[in-house]
Amino acid sequence: MTQVIVTVMPKQGVLDPQGQAVAGALGQLGFEGVGEVRIGKRIELAIAGDDPAGQARAMCEQLLANALIEDYSIEVPG
Amino acid sequence: MTQVIVTVMPKQGVLDPQGQAVAGALGQLGFEGVGEVRIGKRIELAIAGDDPAGQARAMCEQLLANALIEDYSIEVPG
Repeated sequence: MTQVIVTVMPKQGVLDPQGQAVAGALGQLGFEGVGEVRIGKRIELAIAGDDPAGQARAMCEQLLANALIEDYSIEVPG
Repeated sequence: MTQVIVTVMPKQGVLDPQGQAVAGALGQLGFEGVGEVRIGKRIELAIAGDDPAGQARAMCEQLLANALIEDYSIEVPG
């Protein structure tokens, strides 16, 4: 099994309501000087086989990311 | 403004239903050899001031992470 880390973030220019909500909540809690907040997903998978990064790419295309509004990146540590 | 990346993941041993659902869906899509899947959040913030990492830590304690069930880490790239 190879550990693979997939990061899925909203595309630049796409509205991120979750990030805006967090930015607003931080302001209400008294945190000053908070600029843009963007929130995405970090997905850690254990994948067997010869090409875990390629497998992860196919998983992103089919399930893990919405290509219309999200970008993804794949990292195989170590 | 300093860019800060906060990663929030379910603690080891805490059930991760979102990860289990994704693991099941990947199996149904025909992906074999998928082991554990764990899903957390990646939060990118722009923070002004002298101690952006310390600010981010306070934000995690108060809002961004649930210390009962989640671990967080803070990274200041560059």
